[in-house]
Amino acid sequence: MKTSFITDLGTEQNITSFFLVHEKEIRNTREGKSYLRLELGDRSGTIEARMWDQFEAAAKDIARDDFVKVQARVEIYRNKPQLSLQQLRLAKPEEVDLADFLPHTKEDVGKMHAQLLEFAGSIANPWLKKLTTSILNDPAIAKRYMRAPAAKVMHHAFLGGLLEHVIGLCGLAKQVAAHYPELDVDLLLTAAILHDVGKLDELCYERAIGYTVEGQLLGHIVMEVETVSKAMDAIEGFPANLKTVVQHLLISHHGQYEFGSPKLPMIREALVFHYLDDMDSKMAAVRAALATDSGEPEWSTYSSALGRKFLRLEEFLKSTSAKAEEAVPNPKLFP
Amino acid sequence: MKTSFITDLGTEQNITSFFLVHEKEIRNTREGKSYLRLELGDRSGTIEARMWDQFEAAAKDIARDDFVKVQARVEIYRNKPQLSLQQLRLAKPEEVDLADFLPHTKEDVGKMHAQLLEFAGSIANPWLKKLTTSILNDPAIAKRYMRAPAAKVMHHAFLGGLLEHVIGLCGLAKQVAAHYPELDVDLLLTAAILHDVGKLDELCYERAIGYTVEGQLLGHIVMEVETVSKAMDAIEGFPANLKTVVQHLLISHHGQYEFGSPKLPMIREALVFHYLDDMDSKMAAVRAALATDSGEPEWSTYSSALGRKFLRLEEFLKSTSAKAEEAVPNPKLFP
Amino acid sequence: MKTSFITDLGTEQNITSFFLVHEKEIRNTREGKSYLRLELGDRSGTIEARMWDQFEAAAKDIARDDFVKVQARVEIYRNKPQLSLQQLRLAKPEEVDLADFLPHTKEDVGKMHAQLLEFAGSIANPWLKKLTTSILNDPAIAKRYMRAPAAKVMHHAFLGGLLEHVIGLCGLAKQVAAHYPELDVDLLLTAAILHDVGKLDELCYERAIGYTVEGQLLGHIVMEVETVSKAMDAIEGFPANLKTVVQHLLISHHGQYEFGSPKLPMIREALVFHYLDDMDSKMAAVRAALATDSGEPEWSTYSSALGRKFLRLEEFLKSTSAKAEEAVPNPKLFP
Amino acid sequence: MKTSFITDLGTEQNITSFFLVHEKEIRNTREGKSYLRLELGDRSGTIEARMWDQFEAAAKDIARDDFVKVQARVEIYRNKPQLSLQQLRLAKPEEVDLADFLPHTKEDVGKMHAQLLEFAGSIANPWLKKLTTSILNDPAIAKRYMRAPAAKVMHHAFLGGLLEHVIGLCGLAKQVAAHYPELDVDLLLTAAILHDVGKLDELCYERAIGYTVEGQLLGHIVMEVETVSKAMDAIEGFPANLKTVVQHLLISHHGQYEFGSPKLPMIREALVFHYLDDMDSKMAAVRAALATDSGEPEWSTYSSALGRKFLRLEEFLKSTSAKAEEAVPNPKLFP
Amino acid sequence: MKTSFITDLGTEQNITSFFLVHEKEIRNTREGKSYLRLELGDRSGTIEARMWDQFEAAAKDIARDDFVKVQARVEIYRNKPQLSLQQLRLAKPEEVDLADFLPHTKEDVGKMHAQLLEFAGSIANPWLKKLTTSILNDPAIAKRYMRAPAAKVMHHAFLGGLLEHVIGLCGLAKQVAAHYPELDVDLLLTAAILHDVGKLDELCYERAIGYTVEGQLLGHIVMEVETVSKAMDAIEGFPANLKTVVQHLLISHHGQYEFGSPKLPMIREALVFHYLDDMDSKMAAVRAALATDSGEPEWSTYSSALGRKFLRLEEFLKSTSAKAEEAVPNPKLFP
Amino acid sequence: MKTSFITDLGTEQNITSFFLVHEKEIRNTREGKSYLRLELGDRSGTIEARMWDQFEAAAKDIARDDFVKVQARVEIYRNKPQLSLQQLRLAKPEEVDLADFLPHTKEDVGKMHAQLLEFAGSIANPWLKKLTTSILNDPAIAKRYMRAPAAKVMHHAFLGGLLEHVIGLCGLAKQVAAHYPELDVDLLLTAAILHDVGKLDELCYERAIGYTVEGQLLGHIVMEVETVSKAMDAIEGFPANLKTVVQHLLISHHGQYEFGSPKLPMIREALVFHYLDDMDSKMAAVRAALATDSGEPEWSTYSSALGRKFLRLEEFLKSTSAKAEEAVPNPKLFP
Repeated sequence: MKTSFITDLGTEQNITSFFLVHEKEIRNTREGKSYLRLELGDRSGTIEARMWDQFEAAAKDIARDDFVKVQARVEIYRNKPQLSLQQLRLAKPEEVDLADFLPHTKEDVGKMHAQLLEFAGSIANPWLKKLTTSILNDPAIAKRYMRAPAAKVMHHAFLGGLLEHVIGLCGLAKQVAAHYPELDVDLLLTAAILHDVGKLDELCYERAIGYTVEGQLLGHIVMEVETVSKAMDAIEGFPANLKTVVQHLLISHHGQYEFGSPKLPMIREALVFHYLDDMDSKMAAVRAALATDSGEPEWSTYSSALGRKFLRLEEFLKSTSAKAEEAVPNPKLFP
Repeated sequence: MKTSFITDLGTEQNITSFFLVHEKEIRNTREGKSYLRLELGDRSGTIEARMWDQFEAAAKDIARDDFVKVQARVEIYRNKPQLSLQQLRLAKPEEVDLADFLPHTKEDVGKMHAQLLEFAGSIANPWLKKLTTSILNDPAIAKRYMRAPAAKVMHHAFLGGLLEHVIGLCGLAKQVAAHYPELDVDLLLTAAILHDVGKLDELCYERAIGYTVEGQLLGHIVMEVETVSKAMDAIEGFPANLKTVVQHLLISHHGQYEFGSPKLPMIREALVFHYLDDMDSKMAAVRAALATDSGEPEWSTYSSALGRKFLRLEEFLKSTSAKAEEAVPNPKLFP
Repeated sequence: MKTSFITDLGTEQNITSFFLVHEKEIRNTREGKSYLRLELGDRSGTIEARMWDQFEAAAKDIARDDFVKVQARVEIYRNKPQLSLQQLRLAKPEEVDLADFLPHTKEDVGKMHAQLLEFAGSIANPWLKKLTTSILNDPAIAKRYMRAPAAKVMHHAFLGGLLEHVIGLCGLAKQVAAHYPELDVDLLLTAAILHDVGKLDELCYERAIGYTVEGQLLGHIVMEVETVSKAMDAIEGFPANLKTVVQHLLISHHGQYEFGSPKLPMIREALVFHYLDDMDSKMAAVRAALATDSGEPEWSTYSSALGRKFLRLEEFLKSTSAKAEEAVPNPKLFP
Repeated sequence: MKTSFITDLGTEQNITSFFLVHEKEIRNTREGKSYLRLELGDRSGTIEARMWDQFEAAAKDIARDDFVKVQARVEIYRNKPQLSLQQLRLAKPEEVDLADFLPHTKEDVGKMHAQLLEFAGSIANPWLKKLTTSILNDPAIAKRYMRAPAAKVMHHAFLGGLLEHVIGLCGLAKQVAAHYPELDVDLLLTAAILHDVGKLDELCYERAIGYTVEGQLLGHIVMEVETVSKAMDAIEGFPANLKTVVQHLLISHHGQYEFGSPKLPMIREALVFHYLDDMDSKMAAVRAALATDSGEPEWSTYSSALGRKFLRLEEFLKSTSAKAEEAVPNPKLFP
Repeated sequence: MKTSFITDLGTEQNITSFFLVHEKEIRNTREGKSYLRLELGDRSGTIEARMWDQFEAAAKDIARDDFVKVQARVEIYRNKPQLSLQQLRLAKPEEVDLADFLPHTKEDVGKMHAQLLEFAGSIANPWLKKLTTSILNDPAIAKRYMRAPAAKVMHHAFLGGLLEHVIGLCGLAKQVAAHYPELDVDLLLTAAILHDVGKLDELCYERAIGYTVEGQLLGHIVMEVETVSKAMDAIEGFPANLKTVVQHLLISHHGQYEFGSPKLPMIREALVFHYLDDMDSKMAAVRAALATDSGEPEWSTYSSALGRKFLRLEEFLKSTSAKAEEAVPNPKLFP
Repeated sequence: MKTSFITDLGTEQNITSFFLVHEKEIRNTREGKSYLRLELGDRSGTIEARMWDQFEAAAKDIARDDFVKVQARVEIYRNKPQLSLQQLRLAKPEEVDLADFLPHTKEDVGKMHAQLLEFAGSIANPWLKKLTTSILNDPAIAKRYMRAPAAKVMHHAFLGGLLEHVIGLCGLAKQVAAHYPELDVDLLLTAAILHDVGKLDELCYERAIGYTVEGQLLGHIVMEVETVSKAMDAIEGFPANLKTVVQHLLISHHGQYEFGSPKLPMIREALVFHYLDDMDSKMAAVRAALATDSGEPEWSTYSSALGRKFLRLEEFLKSTSAKAEEAVPNPKLFP
């Protein structure tokens, strides 16, 4: 239903489209004339909008975080595009597709979820298989698992990002368990499937990705220990020591105290899982940094999650020596 | 004498009032016309001001940090209020009340000082009572003790703030000494009364709260060791070891090397006093963070002194589950 | 029943008493004669013991962590006392009082527990009163709460130590809440009563104070979140946001990530409770350091929990100037 | 050839001069008229420029990092000077003197290089003398050694800065070796001459000071180990252990792991050289901070390289007590 | 040829065997009689030895680090076994198999080396294949690569340990490159094969595992950059930028400055390789910790390389609840 | 008067000499016979002593830290030398020369003190010259300045060590001030002369080097600020700002908060002085490490003050390649 995205707007174009309201204010010009100022957004970016006439009725109905339908003209003001609104009303629920307002995975979410259930089904230990499948099949959890991002900014910060991250970890877990015979693949898969279940409630991701109050106060590690422990208690006969081991896998997966793990890994599977999780998160952060134009052809933007920028390897290897071109006096220009 | 405060100004209003000059410049318009640009302030905030005609004489007299009297009109320029000055002159000393220009405590300073003397009077050890009362009764010190803030930004950053902080610590000291029989309450009270005496000279707080050069180069710990040591030397017969103990209380009260304490607490009273001082400072920082509107109804602004934001507990407990409202798909909107 | 304690043994004395077996070995002399070597202990210390004749039958019955009855002579070997055993057998359960084998509080445990229930009873908020009293009255918990130490080495490392620590914190909480009107005393008392409940299972304290496997893998913070969350779930209608607040108090009470708190305090009560808990633990560690003879009359032993030694204030203030006596040439010796 | 520098431009002046292009864009006004916007620079600073008419041909020829010749008028726009361009073309190589576009040393580069060769010539150890002179006399190295800055921002960040820094270190090395008889002055001089040779290629400094890709990926320590090792291998008979020692001097000169030294100094000369290099760099950073106006007459600007600001000692000692003037109520104003 | 290993010696046994001399001294008894005291070792441990008669001739020939042949009797002295030597002479080279004196891999070294060459052969990029195979085929390197341990204590601290570690990394690299399509498997294999080549010379491992002086002063990262750079320079036409990339892989593989990497990984392959190398080293350290008896049936020894002990998962899962058994009052003993 | 030093004792020798009593105990043999056990020391080391007969009278007179005269025989017990005492009495003051019991400088203390006065005399600024000479000429200070060590263990840990360190710093200060024209040599000399004056009272160094209670509680920085501030106050007209500068030099000379400096250097002279002081201390620590035999011919002992061992450069350069000898299979042994 949404026809125009913010990054695609051309100057002096007339548009009719839907946006999310990020900010709303009534202001006065120097001459005392009042007008409505909005900041509007969709999944591609944000734009400022002004409405000069007959905005009072519409303005009364509309609040921050509402979806609106607008008819407007794209103008340039101080070198930045701006919408001059002619018509404005609240959008109807059926007119809005959330996917237009939040970035989302390019993979098919249904297929990924099926793949995840397959991984859970491949677990040999009956208790762990029962635990993971019962959690994944809980309808309230399943629905959110298919939408949740893996983080607000650090990595996989888009709808479906958690699913992408977990599928990736399950694949890595199988490979690494094949490599080290001493590892129990069932524990690794259990860790992969459950280690971020707390993020379903730590983050909110309806109209923008953010933290819930509960998420701020407790964090996903504590939240998922509660969820998963209840699930284990609900399985009759679940072995007490295995429960302790699963809890340990969850609380130690950040690997260090200062990253919020109240315990360091003390089981081989916990140690290995921490490395895989950290590596996959960082790889996703590099991917995001490389996907952004930095202005420097051979470098990504600076990633604050990683504390550095990354080399575009292909560009660099294609060029002849960077040293020769950049650092040495150019003989053609100053012969 | 001051009638209008900056935060109360209304558009297109005509005012006559007093301000402190923060910045002064003479500028040219694109057309080459020169004008006077000032940044003016009072305890409620700052505002830009311009004077277009006949400003030369007034401009010559006035410098940064002077108080001025202005007659002006409040206008809006680029969405921000601005003063257009019609008249401008240096204020006379008798026209200015410093309290209008710096934030100050809401408590009665005279009463607080009396309370402090009472705490000193309650000290049983004759040497420590003599020491604290002689310092508090020194007129040069008393005058400044009644004005000094406790810090530039971290906590109690307003006139009279030091007094508030010290009174609070004396009360806490009495309670905690009642709780732990092994503690000497006299030493705790002495520490409370003297531990920030160096701030009287470390900070300057005439027209804005800042650091003196001496304060920058020495810091209040070193400065107060000198002041208090001299006071002890001036008391005939003051026991040498007690002097060492008092000095140790002063230099160890930051508790850690990296916070500028050249020694860690090695006496129980020093250890406990460090906790009380740190806790009271942090409580004041939280109070200041909660007093500021953050835009998020359930959270304070981010406090850089504390490295986090704080929950508004009452708001949060009043609401029904934050989780339900924020993180879960809203069934009304998308049925 | 136990008549002789290890620290009281005199040379060449004959004794009959009970001990706990810490180590057991059969060794050979250089000449090839075999003998039984034990390390025996009680709450006052440990001693080596050897049995030269007819030890085979007794040795077969006895294992590490058993209680034994011995008849022996105290000898000196390589400048250390040693028991030469004449008779040895397994103790009967009814002959042993555990209190002889582990250090314990000097307070009356029953009275302390009653005091604790009184503190819980003084909570005004009905949900928090119900929560704390239901946990304290759970017979399995009550029984262990009356025995548990507060730590293995750091502080209150004796039976009943946890109770002493918690009672102390309740008292401090009441005083500090009276001092700061913005604090909710009910939350502080709840934090005090529940913040170390996980230690009941983190530590084992039957025959020596140590960690359980579960305690090593999960830690008391995670363990008590589970216990307390279940107790809250079991109270019908317990408000969801209040549950989050109680969980936050538990997980943030170590105050810093590097001390195993997965979240920093973000509520005033959590911040203050962290200071009180830390201060009371450190005060107990100082008390223990001062209770040990260091060989230096004016200093405690070095406390590795605190990273320093502490001054014996009374000794130091009694002496005339330490400086004069120690650092200055002694005029009597070299006139 | 360059006649006007950016910091010297006066309003409404007409100029003809050469600049370096930092940014280039074609933009549209609100009314849809397109124009050329450039950011131009020279060694004194940067300025914005706009060309409104007939810019298409010139704009096609010109790219970022080119030198251009312009004819323009200096105007004020939004309180900042701006160039309104009338004519614009690419500069010819012979019209441009690089020294006009990058800050450079005030010393005579030729004389400094001769001095450096003299220091190398004063080395008694034949292998080290051969090594340093062969490197300094390599024409490709010599040419760049005479231009290179010592860093991008931290210290000596101007053309010829490296030479200034190294000459200074050679002088310090001679003095300190005279002071400590156990030091080998030959090793200190070798360290001084070679320790930053990697910066010749780590930095690029043709048109602005920056890092090469190789410099980013390897760093000057690793780069110079390769250069210097090859030079040692090329000297027949160079003793293997002496080679190890020279390599150690290079890799340990940052003194700490966290500053990128893969080894800590384990030879006295390496330890001392680290101190001298660090001290000389910091002294240069202080010099730069003091050379900038901070607005506070007694303080330098804040140096982020040093994490603090520095006192202007002369100003401070000239004034009467800072304390009296700043912190104490001013008796003249409020009698 | 070696028949008795130290850990297998029985009391009062007579043996004839070969040992390595760790320490040698001539001492006097209280009565003034002189004797020879040796510390002898093999790959299984060390033992003290004394020779009382006619030791002078043998003692003259023998020095620390020599191999000796002895005829002796095993006795017990102060509860520790000791050799009483009857005959002693220097061993002949042909009598000694080094493998008896240093711990070594259980894998077949020849097969592992062949496997490594196969991995190098599987590299598609011709420059990298040439580089790795030329290094692996260099006879001097190959010989040492087949013997070198991967570290002195941290992990794979046995002969052939480096080969085991590298083979493992090559396998992991192939798997992970299959998982992340954006990774260049050739660079990962090159990193695996070359990243510890400097250890061939950093460590000495003839008679005991230790560091060479060169290894202490330079470290394996700097040493292998030199070796590998020379190898790249020796390949005609090796692309300059690819050389920089290979050097970057080597110098960044410790991942953090404080672990001696002068640069952080700035290429995806460098980032991933750091994780794999770190994970494989830690897995080996865990393996070693679990292989040692700790006295606690459910825990490994404390690994100082890892800063913790590890759980024996199988033992723990086999037992019924650890909590029940250890932490709860035992009803059978005290009914 | 002292004729035998502990390191020079030969077995079975009979001696008559003076020692300092470090420990004293009365013990019983296994057979119940009591004897006197002493630990005796002089500046060269310590030795155990036993007296078997008629020790009661002497033992009553003697305490720890007393000097004694003994007549004894040197025996070997458990491979360590031991004194068997025949006669024992308290030494008379006139029999003891303290220099025999504490390590001391090899320089002439009188000459060094004269040199120091010369440095003070060379200060041009009249206030600083007056300050330093008045402190150096104070008889109580002068006497202790000529004896004090510079530290307990870190560096210059011997009598006269402080003087050596300060003289060295004055020389360095003159050289470095000649190198950097912006430095004020008077401030550097003042810093050198006064920066450790607090150590005169922080340490006690009558019979062993240790800390006074005052030194433990306050530290030399705080102690010398008091001493030097009083001296400045006693000079009429001493400029207030110069006093602040001198205090800043003292309190910032450790350079970092975590080394006990409550302020970082904010004056060039303070910055430079910190480097010189740190470098000279470390050089002295290296000197001490190299003076001790480590058993490894090419390495010093491990210096815990420096966190590493140091290379004996001469030994290493003399040897042919360490690499060849240590790391490569020895072809002679295994042909």
